[in-house]
Amino acid sequence: MYPKPIQDFIDNFAKLPGIGPRQAARLAFWLLNDKKNTRENLKRALEGLDKEVKTCKFCHFAIENLPAGRQAPESKCPFCDNPARDRKTICVVEKETDLATIEKSGVYKGLYHVLGGLFSALDIAIPKNLKIPELVERISGRTGKEKIEEVILAISPTHEGDLTARYLERLLKPLKIKTTRIGRGLPYGSEVEFADAKTLSGALESRKEIK
Amino acid sequence: MYPKPIQDFIDNFAKLPGIGPRQAARLAFWLLNDKKNTRENLKRALEGLDKEVKTCKFCHFAIENLPAGRQAPESKCPFCDNPARDRKTICVVEKETDLATIEKSGVYKGLYHVLGGLFSALDIAIPKNLKIPELVERISGRTGKEKIEEVILAISPTHEGDLTARYLERLLKPLKIKTTRIGRGLPYGSEVEFADAKTLSGALESRKEIK
Repeated sequence: MYPKPIQDFIDNFAKLPGIGPRQAARLAFWLLNDKKNTRENLKRALEGLDKEVKTCKFCHFAIENLPAGRQAPESKCPFCDNPARDRKTICVVEKETDLATIEKSGVYKGLYHVLGGLFSALDIAIPKNLKIPELVERISGRTGKEKIEEVILAISPTHEGDLTARYLERLLKPLKIKTTRIGRGLPYGSEVEFADAKTLSGALESRKEIK
Repeated sequence: MYPKPIQDFIDNFAKLPGIGPRQAARLAFWLLNDKKNTRENLKRALEGLDKEVKTCKFCHFAIENLPAGRQAPESKCPFCDNPARDRKTICVVEKETDLATIEKSGVYKGLYHVLGGLFSALDIAIPKNLKIPELVERISGRTGKEKIEEVILAISPTHEGDLTARYLERLLKPLKIKTTRIGRGLPYGSEVEFADAKTLSGALESRKEIK
């Protein structure tokens, strides 16, 4: 149906999360009819991911890979590098975009730890790529100088999130560090009428006394 | 919030149709955590749009830009090049993906003409980039050898689509060629209860006698 370069484009872009073959086709023709510059910028942006990004060695958030000399000696992200933040609390998140949402909300001022994924509901093995050993090292004081006093699991209340949180809770117990998980309940602006049973049960469990 | 190369990626990808900054951020980290190969493939796919695509000089659909020698002497798409198709009918579409939808449905076997856009509801000027002069040339027999007998306007029933179709109807009238527009009505599988007034009025106008 489509000429080969267009079909190649569709096949490749349709593999990305949230983009189906229809949107990929629309993108292909939109880009074809747009300035060459737009396509150049996208190529450069993809290159930037390879060449200009590395990982904070403490929290594993992404940081810019600056040329030698301009980079701080330790590869630290702006959060880990900021002495004004609460350095006694670590907020554990699944992924970088979760960190961004929490940070933008302005309700949290401590440190972060990006796990890089969750346990799978289909595979009982402990995923090897998650930054769990690194989290344990940080909490037990082997990386960084801070003495951690609380670990907040800001992990989504999904089946995979629950599996991950339960594993982390058990793992951290011997370290005798306060471990909490963000509360469940009805989101702001939602209506009880449309809440599902799991949300309602979470909301009842985390009910608070009105004084 | 995000390091510069990630923010650059987000800014560039969020300009694409149907992709917002949130999805662009998710894409950035998904790609970062995926194989380098995926990013290479996307870059190559973008390059392919520049180097390997050209336009059929008859219907303006995209065709592969083959190396010299392998290319047919006239830059013809598979539809314009196929003698088995009905060469007396031209189906005028707004864009390449509309052509693809019609072609995949299998209900049409004639030729196509890709306009490359529609009239704007906000600007009364006739858009210069539309392949309207090329359509007139084709119909009046100056390009190609076929004698066109019907022009089907397969243009979406939107305000912009109506403006475009009305202009084309007036323009083609002096050429004395049968011009039709695809019918309006309720889409297959939809319910009368939820149809809006414009759809219902179109459906009533295009009602057919049951014999």
